[in-house]
Amino acid sequence: MTNKPLGVGLIGYGYWGPNLARNFAECAATELLHIADKRPEQREAAQRRYSSVIASADDEAMLRDTRVGAIAIATPTQYHFDFAMRAFAAGKHVLVEKPLAANAREALALVNEAKRRGLTLMVDHTFIYTPAVRYIRALIDDGEIGDVLYYDATRINLGLFQSDVDVIWDLAVHDVAILVYLLGERPSAVSAAGQAHVPGAPHNIAFMTLFFPSGLIAHVNVNWLAPVKIRRTIIGGSRKMVVYDDLEPSEKIKIYDKGIELTDDPDTVQKMRVGYRLGDMRAPNLEPGEALSAVVKAFVDAVRTGRRPDTDGERASLVVRILEAASRSAAMSGKPVAMAEYALEVA
Amino acid sequence: MTNKPLGVGLIGYGYWGPNLARNFAECAATELLHIADKRPEQREAAQRRYSSVIASADDEAMLRDTRVGAIAIATPTQYHFDFAMRAFAAGKHVLVEKPLAANAREALALVNEAKRRGLTLMVDHTFIYTPAVRYIRALIDDGEIGDVLYYDATRINLGLFQSDVDVIWDLAVHDVAILVYLLGERPSAVSAAGQAHVPGAPHNIAFMTLFFPSGLIAHVNVNWLAPVKIRRTIIGGSRKMVVYDDLEPSEKIKIYDKGIELTDDPDTVQKMRVGYRLGDMRAPNLEPGEALSAVVKAFVDAVRTGRRPDTDGERASLVVRILEAASRSAAMSGKPVAMAEYALEVA
Amino acid sequence: MTNKPLGVGLIGYGYWGPNLARNFAECAATELLHIADKRPEQREAAQRRYSSVIASADDEAMLRDTRVGAIAIATPTQYHFDFAMRAFAAGKHVLVEKPLAANAREALALVNEAKRRGLTLMVDHTFIYTPAVRYIRALIDDGEIGDVLYYDATRINLGLFQSDVDVIWDLAVHDVAILVYLLGERPSAVSAAGQAHVPGAPHNIAFMTLFFPSGLIAHVNVNWLAPVKIRRTIIGGSRKMVVYDDLEPSEKIKIYDKGIELTDDPDTVQKMRVGYRLGDMRAPNLEPGEALSAVVKAFVDAVRTGRRPDTDGERASLVVRILEAASRSAAMSGKPVAMAEYALEVA
Amino acid sequence: MTNKPLGVGLIGYGYWGPNLARNFAECAATELLHIADKRPEQREAAQRRYSSVIASADDEAMLRDTRVGAIAIATPTQYHFDFAMRAFAAGKHVLVEKPLAANAREALALVNEAKRRGLTLMVDHTFIYTPAVRYIRALIDDGEIGDVLYYDATRINLGLFQSDVDVIWDLAVHDVAILVYLLGERPSAVSAAGQAHVPGAPHNIAFMTLFFPSGLIAHVNVNWLAPVKIRRTIIGGSRKMVVYDDLEPSEKIKIYDKGIELTDDPDTVQKMRVGYRLGDMRAPNLEPGEALSAVVKAFVDAVRTGRRPDTDGERASLVVRILEAASRSAAMSGKPVAMAEYALEVA
Repeated sequence: MTNKPLGVGLIGYGYWGPNLARNFAECAATELLHIADKRPEQREAAQRRYSSVIASADDEAMLRDTRVGAIAIATPTQYHFDFAMRAFAAGKHVLVEKPLAANAREALALVNEAKRRGLTLMVDHTFIYTPAVRYIRALIDDGEIGDVLYYDATRINLGLFQSDVDVIWDLAVHDVAILVYLLGERPSAVSAAGQAHVPGAPHNIAFMTLFFPSGLIAHVNVNWLAPVKIRRTIIGGSRKMVVYDDLEPSEKIKIYDKGIELTDDPDTVQKMRVGYRLGDMRAPNLEPGEALSAVVKAFVDAVRTGRRPDTDGERASLVVRILEAASRSAAMSGKPVAMAEYALEVA
Repeated sequence: MTNKPLGVGLIGYGYWGPNLARNFAECAATELLHIADKRPEQREAAQRRYSSVIASADDEAMLRDTRVGAIAIATPTQYHFDFAMRAFAAGKHVLVEKPLAANAREALALVNEAKRRGLTLMVDHTFIYTPAVRYIRALIDDGEIGDVLYYDATRINLGLFQSDVDVIWDLAVHDVAILVYLLGERPSAVSAAGQAHVPGAPHNIAFMTLFFPSGLIAHVNVNWLAPVKIRRTIIGGSRKMVVYDDLEPSEKIKIYDKGIELTDDPDTVQKMRVGYRLGDMRAPNLEPGEALSAVVKAFVDAVRTGRRPDTDGERASLVVRILEAASRSAAMSGKPVAMAEYALEVA
Repeated sequence: MTNKPLGVGLIGYGYWGPNLARNFAECAATELLHIADKRPEQREAAQRRYSSVIASADDEAMLRDTRVGAIAIATPTQYHFDFAMRAFAAGKHVLVEKPLAANAREALALVNEAKRRGLTLMVDHTFIYTPAVRYIRALIDDGEIGDVLYYDATRINLGLFQSDVDVIWDLAVHDVAILVYLLGERPSAVSAAGQAHVPGAPHNIAFMTLFFPSGLIAHVNVNWLAPVKIRRTIIGGSRKMVVYDDLEPSEKIKIYDKGIELTDDPDTVQKMRVGYRLGDMRAPNLEPGEALSAVVKAFVDAVRTGRRPDTDGERASLVVRILEAASRSAAMSGKPVAMAEYALEVA
Repeated sequence: MTNKPLGVGLIGYGYWGPNLARNFAECAATELLHIADKRPEQREAAQRRYSSVIASADDEAMLRDTRVGAIAIATPTQYHFDFAMRAFAAGKHVLVEKPLAANAREALALVNEAKRRGLTLMVDHTFIYTPAVRYIRALIDDGEIGDVLYYDATRINLGLFQSDVDVIWDLAVHDVAILVYLLGERPSAVSAAGQAHVPGAPHNIAFMTLFFPSGLIAHVNVNWLAPVKIRRTIIGGSRKMVVYDDLEPSEKIKIYDKGIELTDDPDTVQKMRVGYRLGDMRAPNLEPGEALSAVVKAFVDAVRTGRRPDTDGERASLVVRILEAASRSAAMSGKPVAMAEYALEVA
């Protein structure tokens, strides 16, 4: 291709922004032109690292710059909506950090605005671009694991306590995005419960359950106050079962040829007509590679072709609606919230 | 002591009964006199193993036998009530397999009947008699882990599918019993959700959340359809945190000197006034020993002294009430059920 | 088959003897008739457990008993030779605990005596009858792992310190037997080094290296004074590599499709013409089953058919010769001992 | 201190050189002025990363530059001697990658030359500057683990095959350096055996045993052709035992209060007068921090104060002598080589 690189302006150079900056700088198809952060010391750090980049306190310069085709937003969630709307108004494509927005109404407005203007809106749900999650998707698409019966994720560690979002919006968001990517169906209801152990702060431990029309049940256990770090998801299928442990240096995915089979053995009070199938376990070799690099490539591809990326605004908006339902349920100590209440749809 | 051994009759020689039989036979303070099971092949197996025991199809012989001071009941849960009531009527002390009864009403009736007759009613919640659980109790009692903030248990494996009870009554019962033993407070509400992957069968996967007045939150993840076996409980305390992994051959308990501390650092949008405390981990050496042997000793001690065992009828009745609340919640897809609805109390 | 069960007399009811007794008692093809042990308390324990067995202080009764067709010897190693020779003289087949004898001369004499009299001599190298080791043998025979390049075993734990044999004769004997079973070739030389940390006692830590004509190198690390228990063997092949961890409850064997490939890339000072092949890992499902039960079945089969069992006297004699070479090397701080010095062969 | 930063020239920008460069650039006490590499593409990479650095094909410019006080050498081992000698001749202090030199003669000559000129010679044995190894040293110095009875290291993985050094010089060098740092005594003899699985290439698997006058025995298992990565060292002490697993993200060190105790129990053939002590395990919290940063700080400190760093030329020369003895032993299939043959000493 003889395309010129896509000029990029980055807003927010805090925790995640430097990673985005590095990937935009390293990608041959993008050119990092601007970095905005209201904190002087962050601007200085950015300038030291990228001497040719224009560092500013706000987004004015990058929005005016005609070389800039796309804006990446890595600010706290509450600011996503305003920055993205301003970028759209300036005719720029947008890549937003997860979650797309602080609530479903804003998320939907962003989706509609991008659609109306014919611009790309993509969210950096990084996990969707990891070799592991893509491999699991292929296992599902190929029918190897059969019907998905359950999804059970544990995502716990000590820190980082956030003040603007709770642990569901910070950690469970990953699992909700993965579920939206992996499955062809939407949850019908969501239940969540949590607890804040710092007075006045958001929940730092939470348990979320998603109910799907097919009977599939998904569960996510998230915790900022755990003594050990765990990143483990079990996916039960009617034919095979998968354990995905993101902390394993290799062998992140293990596929178990295990399950149950209904039998004709006479039923008893003690035992069901259930037989157990015990077969081999297989850990596929996964190609290495930084997921964020694939995020940048997918964004460029979406901008250039107009095709929907895997984490487009609509899917990311569904993620936000599920998180919002979880928040409402958590406020009622786990009373399930039907997703039909989130019937807002794209215009 | 010059006490004669306590004569014991055992009802039910199926999955767990043989373990009870062996421990009664090996304990110097008990004498196994009768075994009843309606299945001839089970009676024959019992007779081969214990040639001097009287094997019968029902409990008539053991109830009449004046040498028998106590009855142990290891039948399916639904029969606990009738067998225990008949034993009390015959003036015998009773040890029942977990859970005490199939519902709260029956459990309470058993507690009241034992009280009325001055007989011992104890439930074999075996985990309460393991060195690991007793060690954790001591950590709590000594104040070493501070306030208990959360309890998070995962108890999953492939099988054994049951037809008479669901996975909560089969597996989560252990955690509920442990919680009742460890904590000085009762849950105020219970939420549970589950799914049956065998049509018409009980739930084989479930997630239960218990809310306590102090703010403590407890969560239990149970599953008969998991490709891997996990038995891991994390207990978060305000001073220390414990990981209890029952599958570890040694080092079942790890005590982490980790946690958070509120600081005076200026708050920011990104970061709380939270500091992280990272200290040593300690895995205490636990004395070996079969828990069921300690169950038998505790039962004999309770019979002889009249003292309440750690898993007496009242506490075991609370376990049943919590399980019943979980079942009601699960029937409503996780809607929390207040424990105040279970205000039935011992007469 | 209408064969009568093989009558068995067992000598030695200490650490391992009771396991042999139980398997002879449970096997339909064998009948446990005698147990001999010079210690009264061991005889009493045996009698309590097996009421119909004849318990004696020595082997006289069982050797005279015409119902006895075979003698099993589970005494300390130093007594194997005499008891086995007496059994052969009485026309009995013999199963001996590992190792076959205390030195190569005695081992060879036993092999020759069994051959001369046409009697079965088998050694209970239990590991050879485990599903894991048999699976690895099949991997080698089928060519799946290619040429065996190395065998690297770690077999360490705290205890049991022995006074009559050192840690090589106690623990490395398992690996030597496995090597003899797995491979079609004999080592050409053996090197071993060790240390005794209890004054005057045998070596409690040792490292043994076996050199094979093909270039294969085998290494065994054994230790009675380790804080953790490890039972892990890595087998490197030219096509695949195997990790065998005997402490894994499931997934004892993992087969890695990994290796190197010589390439035509230009050589540099820093890097060889070596490419790395990274493929999937597979953990086969292994059938459960107690290995000692398979030992008893193999012994009966050998007695009845006259066929050589996998751990017959000749192979077990080779094991002893390798251990003896290791002992000689260890006495010289690791100076290699050529196996040609052990050219004694079966008459 | 008002010291000006130490000007540094780096020779070799291949595998490890960039890490040294980054640490010299980040350290406030050093200033990276020159980088030399004969490969143009490496010079370009260095220049892109450090725009103000002078990149050259050889060391002439940096040796002439009076701002340069020290030379760091990260070339293949065979070139260490010449570059270091030239640096000394130019009056520069020297930091050399491990191992110090390709043979004992060269190593000794470097030590003597540095001494003669009063210049600092330090070797980057990085592990010596990790929190884990320093913690273990403190455990030994404080007497907590008692007498060191054995050191048993496993350091295996797939790759990187080297063509200029074998696996002992590449991997076991770390353990030899750690042993020299941890212990107050020198080995009296070394035995090593290995095998090359690539024809004509150096050994890619090797086993080394070091014998010490006190009875301490050290063993190192190194392998470039292993399907799994292991970095585990067990240190047995008379009072406590340590397991050091460098791949653990936290809990790299576990200290076991385990061991044996000689008892007065009557000896038997089966059992020693040995009792087992089983106590708690403790995993200390280790301060985070990149070891290479500590290496740079230690080098600057040594240059400024003239004090001997922990990995000074003399100790690094001992490491080389031990490796050379291992090579000689490996050439004789494990025949032990007495260290007395390496009696060359510093002039």
